[in-house]
Amino acid sequence: MKSVEELGERGIVDIILRSLEPMPNMPIPFGDDVSAVDVGHGKLAVIKTDMLVGRTDVPQGMSLWQAARKAVVMSISDLAAKGVKPIALLASMGVPRHFTQASVEQIGRGLNAGAREYDAHILGGDTNEASDLIISCAAFGVAKKNRLMLRSGAKPGDIAAVTGVFGKTAAGLKVLLQNLSASPKLRKTLVDAVLMPHAQLKDGLALAQTGAVTGSIDSSDGLAWSLHEISKASKVGFLIDNLPVSSDVRKFAEVHGLDPAELCLYGGEEYELVVTVDPKLWTKAKRIASLVRIGLVIEERTLSFDEEGRRAPIEPKGWEHFKTGQ
Amino acid sequence: MKSVEELGERGIVDIILRSLEPMPNMPIPFGDDVSAVDVGHGKLAVIKTDMLVGRTDVPQGMSLWQAARKAVVMSISDLAAKGVKPIALLASMGVPRHFTQASVEQIGRGLNAGAREYDAHILGGDTNEASDLIISCAAFGVAKKNRLMLRSGAKPGDIAAVTGVFGKTAAGLKVLLQNLSASPKLRKTLVDAVLMPHAQLKDGLALAQTGAVTGSIDSSDGLAWSLHEISKASKVGFLIDNLPVSSDVRKFAEVHGLDPAELCLYGGEEYELVVTVDPKLWTKAKRIASLVRIGLVIEERTLSFDEEGRRAPIEPKGWEHFKTGQ
Repeated sequence: MKSVEELGERGIVDIILRSLEPMPNMPIPFGDDVSAVDVGHGKLAVIKTDMLVGRTDVPQGMSLWQAARKAVVMSISDLAAKGVKPIALLASMGVPRHFTQASVEQIGRGLNAGAREYDAHILGGDTNEASDLIISCAAFGVAKKNRLMLRSGAKPGDIAAVTGVFGKTAAGLKVLLQNLSASPKLRKTLVDAVLMPHAQLKDGLALAQTGAVTGSIDSSDGLAWSLHEISKASKVGFLIDNLPVSSDVRKFAEVHGLDPAELCLYGGEEYELVVTVDPKLWTKAKRIASLVRIGLVIEERTLSFDEEGRRAPIEPKGWEHFKTGQ
Repeated sequence: MKSVEELGERGIVDIILRSLEPMPNMPIPFGDDVSAVDVGHGKLAVIKTDMLVGRTDVPQGMSLWQAARKAVVMSISDLAAKGVKPIALLASMGVPRHFTQASVEQIGRGLNAGAREYDAHILGGDTNEASDLIISCAAFGVAKKNRLMLRSGAKPGDIAAVTGVFGKTAAGLKVLLQNLSASPKLRKTLVDAVLMPHAQLKDGLALAQTGAVTGSIDSSDGLAWSLHEISKASKVGFLIDNLPVSSDVRKFAEVHGLDPAELCLYGGEEYELVVTVDPKLWTKAKRIASLVRIGLVIEERTLSFDEEGRRAPIEPKGWEHFKTGQ
């Protein structure tokens, strides 16, 4: 009998999914970033829940306002990756007994701030007593059928791209948790990436309009993991020849003798979009969204990267509950 | 500065709600059992989240299968109280490290069983590591506008009614947690009420069709609390002349020297519907749903009950996180 530590988050999810009877005519299959229900008139109701847990998702240095805002951003990011505008959210909370009125006010304001940043509203929720801070957000939006950017449509020859650079969160966590040094300006950039994540909603909505995107996912489990998820859902591989390492991260890595590729690929808790784009529509897509080309979709189901002449496999690892030591 | 124990669950909810900017034209105001978004064509998307926490919501003797099923039933019950058919649910989970593969399988099967009992499906979710079992379900359904049974329409002269008898859960918890004795048959009835709660979906859906219901709520926080919530939302009072005490509970109370009215009013964790009905449509409503008349809605904003010549106020108390000692 396996323990949940041996199973890991993915193993647990697989067991749960095997227990579920699938809804007939599910518009989005199990295991994509969001779920959907056909509500007629060519529209889908899109829903997503994501849970923030104090012990694993709220690093030292993050305020309760920031934690509550992050809980909202986490679930909005999944809608963004599918090109769906969030309309409303619910927040289900577990609150520890030692919290004060001020803690609750911070949480309330953080929830509201996160939603309003993306023009959405918190409509309600549920409050419970728990031994650790828990904020589970459910995000709701409406999408046109056939406009959703799923994980499953990438084809060999498509361009792999991202909406921004990577590695700042991984570096920021090293600053916050391991006290690694950085100049005040660099420190602020890296730490802000951890404390104030942003969902790439504008780019997601714009890209969905172009019809150029064949596969899409948010990078909350890390760049490497995200590429592997598209690979699995689309049955393709990736050859990455332009790792999107943040220049700040390169500097930080050099000072501390760290591998910038490692920080870029295996960090997680980043909320950029990782997409594959039909090459015929690349120019159109690039005009309306801040896309960085990072490589190509290939037929062979392998994932690797070239970085200044060094070629290495991209491992299927990233942030995973139970398996990632904290 | 108040602690959350002083604030209690209701105080916390009030602070959160004050922090939120309300969505313009909210179809359902803050604080009802569910939230909704107008999706056009005369339809509302209805959403609800409810969180089950191991320490407070899973009593000794409840299996993980039952706990997961209960998490689903809890959120379906809120849709039932509004007359909305649940279509899909998401389950966001916190799983402790000491759980095994068998625990996860039980949870998966319990989630599925809860949803399928009500002809709904689990579409997805999120798995996290947590120090206690957490299952936050988000339920989704679609309702016709103006067919929702809110808390806010009760009028003086309306008939107060419930879909079933009360007190079994409170008595069952005394059997499970305080080892109070009961015959094997009685024990099974009372304990089943705790371990296998049922949402009154059939009655809720049928009642919504009649247009007879002016106010409705589920009784998960107890009968007394539910009446107080309708009272607050509708600005009315209640005179209860027929406390719906289960006959099994009367027997149990007599043996153990307990007050059956107390068990009936202040138990909580029951999932009957508490409704107010337009007297002109009472016969119609009673024909299609299993309704028990318990009293009358009155203009004066007081709540009291008559029980065999004894008249007493109905206190605004019931299950409340932080305030209820466990």
